[in-house]
Amino acid sequence: MGMEIKTIGVLTSGGDAPGMNAAIRAVVRTAINKGMRVLGIRRGYSGLLTGDAFEMNLRSVSDIIQRGGTILYTARCPEFTTEEGQDRAVKMCKELGIDGLVVIGGDGSFRGARDLSVKGIPCIGIPGTIDNDIAATEYSIGFDTALNTVLQSVDRIRDTSQSHDRCSVVEVMGRGAGYIALHSGIACGALSVLVPEVPYDFQRDIVDKMKKTLKAGKQHFVIIVAEGVGHTQELTKRIEEATGITSRLTVLGYVQRGGVPTARERIMASRLGYRAVELLANGIGNRVVGLQRDEIVDYDIVEALKMVKHFDIDLYKMANVISL
Amino acid sequence: MGMEIKTIGVLTSGGDAPGMNAAIRAVVRTAINKGMRVLGIRRGYSGLLTGDAFEMNLRSVSDIIQRGGTILYTARCPEFTTEEGQDRAVKMCKELGIDGLVVIGGDGSFRGARDLSVKGIPCIGIPGTIDNDIAATEYSIGFDTALNTVLQSVDRIRDTSQSHDRCSVVEVMGRGAGYIALHSGIACGALSVLVPEVPYDFQRDIVDKMKKTLKAGKQHFVIIVAEGVGHTQELTKRIEEATGITSRLTVLGYVQRGGVPTARERIMASRLGYRAVELLANGIGNRVVGLQRDEIVDYDIVEALKMVKHFDIDLYKMANVISL
Amino acid sequence: MGMEIKTIGVLTSGGDAPGMNAAIRAVVRTAINKGMRVLGIRRGYSGLLTGDAFEMNLRSVSDIIQRGGTILYTARCPEFTTEEGQDRAVKMCKELGIDGLVVIGGDGSFRGARDLSVKGIPCIGIPGTIDNDIAATEYSIGFDTALNTVLQSVDRIRDTSQSHDRCSVVEVMGRGAGYIALHSGIACGALSVLVPEVPYDFQRDIVDKMKKTLKAGKQHFVIIVAEGVGHTQELTKRIEEATGITSRLTVLGYVQRGGVPTARERIMASRLGYRAVELLANGIGNRVVGLQRDEIVDYDIVEALKMVKHFDIDLYKMANVISL
Amino acid sequence: MGMEIKTIGVLTSGGDAPGMNAAIRAVVRTAINKGMRVLGIRRGYSGLLTGDAFEMNLRSVSDIIQRGGTILYTARCPEFTTEEGQDRAVKMCKELGIDGLVVIGGDGSFRGARDLSVKGIPCIGIPGTIDNDIAATEYSIGFDTALNTVLQSVDRIRDTSQSHDRCSVVEVMGRGAGYIALHSGIACGALSVLVPEVPYDFQRDIVDKMKKTLKAGKQHFVIIVAEGVGHTQELTKRIEEATGITSRLTVLGYVQRGGVPTARERIMASRLGYRAVELLANGIGNRVVGLQRDEIVDYDIVEALKMVKHFDIDLYKMANVISL
Repeated sequence: MGMEIKTIGVLTSGGDAPGMNAAIRAVVRTAINKGMRVLGIRRGYSGLLTGDAFEMNLRSVSDIIQRGGTILYTARCPEFTTEEGQDRAVKMCKELGIDGLVVIGGDGSFRGARDLSVKGIPCIGIPGTIDNDIAATEYSIGFDTALNTVLQSVDRIRDTSQSHDRCSVVEVMGRGAGYIALHSGIACGALSVLVPEVPYDFQRDIVDKMKKTLKAGKQHFVIIVAEGVGHTQELTKRIEEATGITSRLTVLGYVQRGGVPTARERIMASRLGYRAVELLANGIGNRVVGLQRDEIVDYDIVEALKMVKHFDIDLYKMANVISL
Repeated sequence: MGMEIKTIGVLTSGGDAPGMNAAIRAVVRTAINKGMRVLGIRRGYSGLLTGDAFEMNLRSVSDIIQRGGTILYTARCPEFTTEEGQDRAVKMCKELGIDGLVVIGGDGSFRGARDLSVKGIPCIGIPGTIDNDIAATEYSIGFDTALNTVLQSVDRIRDTSQSHDRCSVVEVMGRGAGYIALHSGIACGALSVLVPEVPYDFQRDIVDKMKKTLKAGKQHFVIIVAEGVGHTQELTKRIEEATGITSRLTVLGYVQRGGVPTARERIMASRLGYRAVELLANGIGNRVVGLQRDEIVDYDIVEALKMVKHFDIDLYKMANVISL
Repeated sequence: MGMEIKTIGVLTSGGDAPGMNAAIRAVVRTAINKGMRVLGIRRGYSGLLTGDAFEMNLRSVSDIIQRGGTILYTARCPEFTTEEGQDRAVKMCKELGIDGLVVIGGDGSFRGARDLSVKGIPCIGIPGTIDNDIAATEYSIGFDTALNTVLQSVDRIRDTSQSHDRCSVVEVMGRGAGYIALHSGIACGALSVLVPEVPYDFQRDIVDKMKKTLKAGKQHFVIIVAEGVGHTQELTKRIEEATGITSRLTVLGYVQRGGVPTARERIMASRLGYRAVELLANGIGNRVVGLQRDEIVDYDIVEALKMVKHFDIDLYKMANVISL
Repeated sequence: MGMEIKTIGVLTSGGDAPGMNAAIRAVVRTAINKGMRVLGIRRGYSGLLTGDAFEMNLRSVSDIIQRGGTILYTARCPEFTTEEGQDRAVKMCKELGIDGLVVIGGDGSFRGARDLSVKGIPCIGIPGTIDNDIAATEYSIGFDTALNTVLQSVDRIRDTSQSHDRCSVVEVMGRGAGYIALHSGIACGALSVLVPEVPYDFQRDIVDKMKKTLKAGKQHFVIIVAEGVGHTQELTKRIEEATGITSRLTVLGYVQRGGVPTARERIMASRLGYRAVELLANGIGNRVVGLQRDEIVDYDIVEALKMVKHFDIDLYKMANVISL
C-alpha cells in the first residue's frame, strides 16, 4: 500500500480505439464512487504538458459508452519522450493536484507511464489498441470491435466475390502483428490468412489451396493479409497470374479504428477501467492492467514491457484445416 | 483411446443460436480432413429417429459461417426421452453407419447424448444456447451475438428514452438465468440490472438510484430485466408511479435468437467444433466440450450435467458502481 | 412576400424520429447562412411556453447528423392546445425576439403551428414521424430508418423461424396507418401483410396462403401486422390452431423509433429543413413542407391538415403476388 | 400488344449490386403468377451463349431478398458485343424455348438487350448499378444500399478523425459519376464533396472552408471525393500541406458493392421486376423500366440509351450551405 491518492487524471494516448470511452467512463465513475476527484486530460501527454484538463463528474461520462473514438482526444507528443518533458509533466501534475494517473494506450504510452511513476506520479496503464499487440494482456481495447468491423466489410466484399467468381484479397490492420488477420480470417472463413508471424509459401498456401478448392466446386475466394506482411498489391497480381482467377485488393484502412464498440468491448473496457482505479485507490502505481485467461490481472510496467507475446500457432493451424 | 470412428453424424437440438452454422462447418471440415465421413441429421433427435440424414462434403458448409440459425434445423423430440426412442435412435445410427455423433445444443440435448453414449454411440456435446446457462462452460454458442443484438436494440431505445426524458424497461431473454441481462446491462450502461440470481429491493435498487441520478442532472433511464425475474409490465407501472417518470416496457423477444453471428461467436464455435471432432477421432465419446478461462476443455457428460454455474457477483457489483 | 424575419426558433414536437437532428442541423446552418439568428427551443411547445431556449451557432449542430432522437428533446403540451396557452406562446416569442418558427413533428404539431401563424408568428411545419401518416407528404422524417430497423429485426427473427419451421407474427408500429407494415412487409418478403386500411380474410389471406406455400415446400413464415390492426396475440393463436404450425408473436415496440438515421433519412431531412428556412427567409409562414413525387413542395397548413392520404393499393396487390 | 410470351429468361449482367436478388425474386414470382415459365440464366450474356440455364420455381427465390450479390452470378462477355455472338444467343433462346428476356444491369447490358430485341427476342432492361449513372431512371438497384454502406464507413472513420483532430479524405465509387459522392457527402455531413460533374477550386472549396471551420472551433473534417475525380492520394497530401492538418485517405473500394440490401432497395427492385414482367406478359419488349419522380416508368431502349442525366446542381449547392 502506498500513499493516499485524492485526485486522479485520466488520458488516452496513441491511436484511438473503440471502447476507450467505456474505459474512461468506468475510471471516472469508480473514482468518484471511492471519493476521489477526476481530471480529464485532453490529447494525451501533450495535454498533460500544457495543463489542458477539466474536472469530470458522473454526468461527464453519460451516454458515451456506445461511442467510438475518445472524448478526451489523443495526440502524439515527442516532447514527452525527453527527460525535460517528463519533468514538466510532473510539475503540471502537482500544479493541477493530480496524484495518480490512468493512461489508456499502447506500449509507447506505457513507457511514459513508467517514467512518470518513477518520478513520483503513480500511473496505471490500460491496454488500448485495436492491434492487440501488447504482450502483457490477451486482450486490448478495440480488438473485438475491429474484428467485427473487418467481418462486416468482408461479408460485403464476399457478395461481389461470389457473384463474379473472383478472389478478394483484403488487407487488414495490425501494424507488425497478425492478430486481427488471424481472428478475422477464421471468422470470415478466408481460404488463406497471411500474418507476419508465420512465413508463407505462395504456391502451397495460396495457389494449391485455390486449385484444390476450385476442383471441389467453389469459385470465389477470400484471402486476408495483415498489413505487416506488405506488398498486397503485388500479391494480388501474382495470384491472378498464377491461377487465372480475377483478383481484387481491398485495403480496409481507417474504418477499422472507429465505430460503435461491441458488447464485449464495452464490458472489458469497463472491467479494466474499474481495476485501474482500484489499484490507485490502494496507493498502487506503476502497473499495467490486462486480461489473462479471462481474468483481470496487473503487472509491473517494467516487467510488462519486457514480455513477449506468443502467436497462437494452434489457432493458425485450425484455420488451415477448416478453411478449405 | 476407444474404437475407431469412421462416420460421424452432426445435429443441432433445442433452441437455435447464431454460430451453430460455424460449429457445423468446423465439424464437417475437420472430420473430412481427418478422413471421416459426415452425415448431417435434420431437426435434431427427431431426424435421427426417422433417419432424415444426408452426406455432407466440404462444399455443404460453404458460405454458411456468416448465417444465423442452423442449416440442419432443430426441433423438440419428446419421444427421444424414452428408453424406446433411444433404442430406435441407436438402431438408426447403425443403419446409417454412424459410429459417432456431435450434438450441438443445451443441457437437455446433452442428456440425450449421454444416453446414446451409454448405449454405444460415442457422442460429444457442444454447448449452444444464447442463454449461456450451461455450467460446464463459461461460453455457449450464441451468447456473444445475443448480447450485441440486445445492445443494438437498447442503443435505439435510448434515443427515444433520452428525447422524451423517459425510463425504458427492457426485458431480455435468458430463461432462468441472468447472464444476458447482466452483460448487456453493463454494456449498455443500464441504471439497474435485475436478474433471477440476485434478489432486488425495489426502493433501493431502482427508485433511489433514479432519484439520485435525477439530482445529478440525468433525466432518462434504461433498466434491464431478465425474463426470469418476471412481472415486467407490473414493474414498469410501479416505476412510473413511484418516480413520476414516464416509463415504457419493451420485450425484445425473438430478435435475440437470430442474426449474423459476431466474430467471437464464429471463432468460438469453430474452436468447439474442431475439438469435438478431435475427440471423436481419438475414439473418445461421452464428453461435453466447453470454454474455461479462455481455453477449450472437455468433461464427462455425466459430470458436466452435475456442475453448478456460479453467478459472477463481482461483475454484478461493478455494474452497480459504474452505472450511476 | 411577408415581413422580414431576423430570428427564428426551432423545436421538435410529438414522438421523436431518426433524422430530426439532421433537419435541425439544416435549419440552423441555412438560417445562419442567410444572416438570421436561431434559437433552439427545448421540449417542443412546452419549452416555448416557459422560454426554455438557447442560441444556436454552426457548432451547436456539429456531429449530430448521425444521431437518432432529437437534441432539442420533445414533450407533450396539453396547455398549448388552449387559446390561453397559445397567447402565452406568442408573448414568449416576442420576449425572446423570435419572429419565425420551424416546427418538426406530426399533424398535432402542425395544428399548433397553424394557430401560432394566425396569431402573427409565421410558422413552417416539417413532417417528422416514423408512421408516415401525414397526408401532405409522401415521406416523413423517420420512416426510412424505421423500415430498415424493422427489416433488421425480421431478418433476425427469420433465422429462428426457419430453423424451427415456425410462423413468426411481427407487430410493427404505425398508429392508425399501415405504411410501415406494407413497406417492411414487402422488403422482408412476408407471406402476408395486415394493415388497418385493407380488411383481411383470415382464411384466404393467411391460412390458405400458408397451406399453399407448405405444399410448395416452404415451412417457415413471416407475417407482418400493423399495430392498428390489433389483437395480434389472439391472431397468433388462431394461426397455430388453424394450421398446426407453431406460431410466435414478436412486438417490435420502441426499437423502431430510434437508431442511427439512414442515408435517405439524413438527405430528406436536410432538404426539408433547408426549404423551411428558405420560406421563412422570404417572409412566408403558415406552410407545411413535404415531399411529393420526389420533389420538395409546400402547402398552406390549413389545406395540408384537410388532405386525405390514399393507401397505395397497387403496392399492396404487388406484395400479394410476390410473397408466395 | 405483341406476341404471346410463355417462357422468359432472367439474367444479371455487369457489376453486381445489392437488390439484384430482390429483382430476380419479383421477376420469377410475378411470371409464375401470370402462368409463365422462368429460366434463370447464369453469368449474364455469357451463360446465354452457352445455354447455362435452369428452370426456376417459387422456391428458387425463397429467402434471397435479403442477400447481396446475385444468385444468378454475373460476368463480362466480349463475344456478345459482336453480331455473331448475338445470333448465337438468339439461337440459344430458341433452343431453350425462351421467348422473352429480363436483363438486370447497366447501359452496356441494355445495348445487348436492344440488339436481342431487334433480332426477335423481346427484352426488358432493369437498371442495376450502385453508381446510379443510368439516364433513363432516377434510381438504379444498389444505389441506396451503397449510400448506407458509405455512411457506415464514414461514421466509423469520423471517430478517428475527431479523436485525432484530422482531415479524412474518403474516395467513394461511382465510375464517371458523382451521385454516390454527392448523396453520401450530404448524408455524412462532409465539409466538401468533389464530383466529376462540377469543377472544384482547391483553395475555395477545401482550404478556405477548412480554415473558416477551424475558426468556428471544429478541428476534424471529412471530405468525400468521387473516384471519377481522381488523384485522391495527391489531393490528401496537398490538403495537409496547405492547412497543416494531418490528412489521411481511405479508399472504400469493393465494400460498397455488396451487403444486405436496404428496405428501399428491396422495394424498388421488387417494383421494377414486377413491372418488367407485366410488360413481357403484354407482349411488349425493347423497353427499359425505371423510376421517374417516384413512379415506375418505361422507355424504348434506344431512346433510353440516348438520354442524358442531369446532375442535381441545387442539391450540390445545398450541400455547400449546410456543410459548414
